[in-house]
Amino acid sequence: MPFHCIYHPPNLYTPSDKNAIAKAITKIYTQEPNEDHPFSPGLPPFLVVINFIQVGQDDFYVGGESNQNFVRIIVQHHATHAPTYQRKRDFIEQYEKAIDPYTSGKGIDWELSISNEDPISWNTNGIHPPPHLSDAHFVWKKLNKPVEWDKESGASSEP
Amino acid sequence: MPFHCIYHPPNLYTPSDKNAIAKAITKIYTQEPNEDHPFSPGLPPFLVVINFIQVGQDDFYVGGESNQNFVRIIVQHHATHAPTYQRKRDFIEQYEKAIDPYTSGKGIDWELSISNEDPISWNTNGIHPPPHLSDAHFVWKKLNKPVEWDKESGASSEP
Amino acid sequence: MPFHCIYHPPNLYTPSDKNAIAKAITKIYTQEPNEDHPFSPGLPPFLVVINFIQVGQDDFYVGGESNQNFVRIIVQHHATHAPTYQRKRDFIEQYEKAIDPYTSGKGIDWELSISNEDPISWNTNGIHPPPHLSDAHFVWKKLNKPVEWDKESGASSEP
Repeated sequence: MPFHCIYHPPNLYTPSDKNAIAKAITKIYTQEPNEDHPFSPGLPPFLVVINFIQVGQDDFYVGGESNQNFVRIIVQHHATHAPTYQRKRDFIEQYEKAIDPYTSGKGIDWELSISNEDPISWNTNGIHPPPHLSDAHFVWKKLNKPVEWDKESGASSEP
Repeated sequence: MPFHCIYHPPNLYTPSDKNAIAKAITKIYTQEPNEDHPFSPGLPPFLVVINFIQVGQDDFYVGGESNQNFVRIIVQHHATHAPTYQRKRDFIEQYEKAIDPYTSGKGIDWELSISNEDPISWNTNGIHPPPHLSDAHFVWKKLNKPVEWDKESGASSEP
Repeated sequence: MPFHCIYHPPNLYTPSDKNAIAKAITKIYTQEPNEDHPFSPGLPPFLVVINFIQVGQDDFYVGGESNQNFVRIIVQHHATHAPTYQRKRDFIEQYEKAIDPYTSGKGIDWELSISNEDPISWNTNGIHPPPHLSDAHFVWKKLNKPVEWDKESGASSEP
């Protein structure tokens, strides 16, 4: 979590754009909560995975018409789900702001949605991630990699 | 909503086929409800987004065997979800009928599924779409584009 | 069900690897339940669909950095959903074991998640699959293809 598929037409984004988009999205998931972003999930960076999927000419349709000026972003959340209408809206607004230079700033149309997936049927490197904001979560964040952790105590195999 | 990913083998569909498939699918979401299609959601056309994703030879497996004669269609609904078993079945039957010339008509095997995604964590051009069949919904449909609308009154910034 | 999208970097898997991965995954869904795998769903093979999606260089980001050593596996379940925490964990562990030679055995990092999708809005070859472990389910399994079945009796059009 989170997994992002960014379906885009050819020649819209340069490699440098993609790098900047990936960094902007990663930041909203990994930064510490603060006054501006009180609900940042503060995730370990390696849990933020982003794939750019190029959709060919003749392959992207909007309203029944071929369209080379549209981006569709699909996000899946696993670790934690915003608990209220307002928190969901706050989070998606924050996401929109982060990608704004590459959406409205590029003069394209775009659509964004976030789905709430099962946090149990989820592994990274074969390990079930620890509960959000548990002791082991903070160890994973500090190390920026998954390590075995104790389901009973919430402690992790590395300090 | 709705977002459609059509995973297909190379050389199955011509650009003209894809155009026809996109138009057929778009129609079932945008047409006004009538006697034949009482449960059409009547969406603004621009909300129907369809991506054809070509899956290479050696990349498409069915039952553990490489298969170049199969199409997998994944649909995500956000705006509105059919409320009953029968309504869900009616809708998917309508979908099957629309694409029939390009599935059974092509002599292929295929699989289709529709998932019910969160209508809150969803934006188009940075705007949360208005409630289904609200006043603003009909303005969006008439204009065939998203415009700001008032969360209190449901009215939209353009008449 | 189940549908598997395996997002991978170029040049990681040979066609032979992909074939072996597809066979290993298919087996955990189709084998008869036994002492080692008491919760195998025992599905008809043709219901297991696997797509390998190659994600280009500059297109795969982990933690905000371009990464050519990561695989993201997205699985969608429709036919049946594990009913408890432990059953979900047992199943994903079995999945991990099946793909282990192609994940940890390749020295890569990877992430795996399984989502629980609507079993009603789901068709194969235009037919709503019969209830899991119904009489018609076993006919589908024996024939390894979908055939019409009777919603009232659960019986299928072919013996």
